[in-house]
Amino acid sequence: MGRRYDTVTLLTDYGNTDEFVGVMKAVVRDIAPHVTTIDLTHEVPPYDVRAGALTLVRSVGYLPEGVVVAVVDPGVGTGRRPLAIEVAEGAGVFVGPDNGLLAPAVALLGGAQRAVVLDNPDYRLEALGPTFDGRDVFAPAAAHLCNGVDLSEFGELADPASLMPAAVPLPNTEGEGVITGQVLWIDHFGNCQLNIGPEELDVLTGNDTAVRVTPLDGTPRVASRVTTFSELGVGAVGLVTDAYGMLALVCDRRSAAVELGLGPGDDIALELITDGQSSRAPGAVAVAVTLPTHRPSAPEV
Amino acid sequence: MGRRYDTVTLLTDYGNTDEFVGVMKAVVRDIAPHVTTIDLTHEVPPYDVRAGALTLVRSVGYLPEGVVVAVVDPGVGTGRRPLAIEVAEGAGVFVGPDNGLLAPAVALLGGAQRAVVLDNPDYRLEALGPTFDGRDVFAPAAAHLCNGVDLSEFGELADPASLMPAAVPLPNTEGEGVITGQVLWIDHFGNCQLNIGPEELDVLTGNDTAVRVTPLDGTPRVASRVTTFSELGVGAVGLVTDAYGMLALVCDRRSAAVELGLGPGDDIALELITDGQSSRAPGAVAVAVTLPTHRPSAPEV
Amino acid sequence: MGRRYDTVTLLTDYGNTDEFVGVMKAVVRDIAPHVTTIDLTHEVPPYDVRAGALTLVRSVGYLPEGVVVAVVDPGVGTGRRPLAIEVAEGAGVFVGPDNGLLAPAVALLGGAQRAVVLDNPDYRLEALGPTFDGRDVFAPAAAHLCNGVDLSEFGELADPASLMPAAVPLPNTEGEGVITGQVLWIDHFGNCQLNIGPEELDVLTGNDTAVRVTPLDGTPRVASRVTTFSELGVGAVGLVTDAYGMLALVCDRRSAAVELGLGPGDDIALELITDGQSSRAPGAVAVAVTLPTHRPSAPEV
Repeated sequence: MGRRYDTVTLLTDYGNTDEFVGVMKAVVRDIAPHVTTIDLTHEVPPYDVRAGALTLVRSVGYLPEGVVVAVVDPGVGTGRRPLAIEVAEGAGVFVGPDNGLLAPAVALLGGAQRAVVLDNPDYRLEALGPTFDGRDVFAPAAAHLCNGVDLSEFGELADPASLMPAAVPLPNTEGEGVITGQVLWIDHFGNCQLNIGPEELDVLTGNDTAVRVTPLDGTPRVASRVTTFSELGVGAVGLVTDAYGMLALVCDRRSAAVELGLGPGDDIALELITDGQSSRAPGAVAVAVTLPTHRPSAPEV
Repeated sequence: MGRRYDTVTLLTDYGNTDEFVGVMKAVVRDIAPHVTTIDLTHEVPPYDVRAGALTLVRSVGYLPEGVVVAVVDPGVGTGRRPLAIEVAEGAGVFVGPDNGLLAPAVALLGGAQRAVVLDNPDYRLEALGPTFDGRDVFAPAAAHLCNGVDLSEFGELADPASLMPAAVPLPNTEGEGVITGQVLWIDHFGNCQLNIGPEELDVLTGNDTAVRVTPLDGTPRVASRVTTFSELGVGAVGLVTDAYGMLALVCDRRSAAVELGLGPGDDIALELITDGQSSRAPGAVAVAVTLPTHRPSAPEV
Repeated sequence: MGRRYDTVTLLTDYGNTDEFVGVMKAVVRDIAPHVTTIDLTHEVPPYDVRAGALTLVRSVGYLPEGVVVAVVDPGVGTGRRPLAIEVAEGAGVFVGPDNGLLAPAVALLGGAQRAVVLDNPDYRLEALGPTFDGRDVFAPAAAHLCNGVDLSEFGELADPASLMPAAVPLPNTEGEGVITGQVLWIDHFGNCQLNIGPEELDVLTGNDTAVRVTPLDGTPRVASRVTTFSELGVGAVGLVTDAYGMLALVCDRRSAAVELGLGPGDDIALELITDGQSSRAPGAVAVAVTLPTHRPSAPEV
């Protein structure tokens, strides 16, 4: 027998309208009644593996020991492998498709220690059709893991090096006086998380910065580096260090995404400006955000 | 004392925006703290008894032992009876209004063994107004059932034969070379589940089939019988055997409902076509889907 | 050690799309694995402290003993105090920002007995940025409270009289033959709860009443005082005593908010009419609802 677990954390793109998630929880409870489930989110945009992977990365440091089931799975029913991946000396197991969804979170926790393809029919439900692996493959696997079934029982061991990686977009700081990056995430309040950390901006500009934002329609905007939303006046745009330690474009009690016309995956550039357009410190070092390219029509993973 | 239960599964049309469902869970926890609740869904379209009944039927085979509370209840506050219905030798009890919502799931589990009208005020909360039976009647009944109160304590026994039935639409296979049926359900991804099983299509066409779809705007479309979404090219429509064993019209990573303009309750016909319009096997037996009638303005239950 | 608790009830404006609420639950489970969480709602309109406060007031009488975490917090990261407030001889503790969100529920339960500012870093998570107190301050405090940490351990005691109050709008019954009031809440079904109780209308009109509704576009409408929705015909508007004991404008299986063009915070007036426009009892006492002012652009708290 392997280690037992008490918690299953769930992330899917199944939505909260249909009964898909409820049925997964029913399957878990039927097999492992002692387990408590936690919903991370089920509103990952349909098929958006990249958004799901980023959500896992933002959350994983806060999760309790246990099993994480993540299902954003446009390839369901095809040859892509259903996996369980053990991390952190067995403190956690990730269950989901081998399509890059799990890779960044696994990497953040130190990498896969063991991995297995979930092909043992003893730990699956008999499927009436091949389109609901959340119910028929992943939820039963999570429940049996919680009951102490060892990873090796679920199927053929997979080489951790063979797992599908995910391309995590990195900012480019090699230009002179410019950082190019990307909008990673628009949250419920319209805050726009960038893939750029505050320390990278500090290297570019020093500590006292203001930012010129050029939205897609070309109207330039000045934004201030602030500590929190309420420092911003009506109509102002700010750059904060968000709750994940990344830079985010924000407004006070309004959506910066709407204000600036930004969406997930949009490219941006932060540029030094020295023309005194800063609203806080005229003449000080400042930065312009420009949005040189249009939103990609499909997520890149 | 009756049997005790540990799980209450919930299905309503209350939505996830107001506190209605949270208050029901608070009531359950206050009376029966040992109980775990599972949300099947709370986004049944408002008042749509038929959609709620179909959701229960799709789920009921996966639920653990326990109590199911289902509330889609346009007649709340009127003479319709609030019921508890015992099924499967007491392995489960359904709690909800007597309006056809529970009937198909009860039938699938072998029919009602005992039923009772929930009219004993000892097991209700005192209501400030007559419009929230989920909180005042159904949640307390579920909690007291979990505590081992026998069904007979809740009120007057009801004749199982007196319960309101639900009209489940059956496909019509009596035409020559044609099956007429209905769209049962559009899921989160836009897949359109039909009330037609794959074996019925097989009788019509044999195993190698393609399908011509005629959307409401009259533009004919050819669709392929496939095993999974990814076999379909961009713009193609397919027919799969879905995770419930029924036929569904699907696209790959897009909404077939949007592509074809279909909604729940729409009538369809699958017809043999022999003019070689199949995209997979020219000259083989093929099938046309036509959508002869407009969407009904109200659900029929 | 203080009292231990087993239940944490959650209310936020974080939405159900991002992982915010799931991460809060993960934090609670990591610190206090014995706790069960209940979601009251996470779809309070963003920043709408008044709507959150009203939701708590509607629910609080039904909650089990335990901790309530409420986060609608436009001032996050500023000087507003994060609080824990003990009520009802320690049967409950409210955790959240000192901005009026908690005040009406605390008052309904008899007022604050002890209050504390959550400034002890031992019971916070180390924050990467100052914008997610739900994760870093409020969820850890709730979990440690459940583990039996006494309120006094969390920081400096606060004078209950110093807590931010909330302005609860009262109806005005001083005019002759008129009550002026406000729409408190539009629910999922479009029912419009007023801040007027049935007894106030009874004083105005006696028991047999009909109501003339004048929507914002000026078209007068007659509505009947009814016990439940189904007494209303197609197109009719009614006034019921809702499940919270307040008057609500309703339609049968349709949204009264859409029918009448009403939103939360809209002012209304109920007026005696004696011109026989009642649809139920010509010549009887009747009441007109007029909507004299436009919707406020921001909630008043």
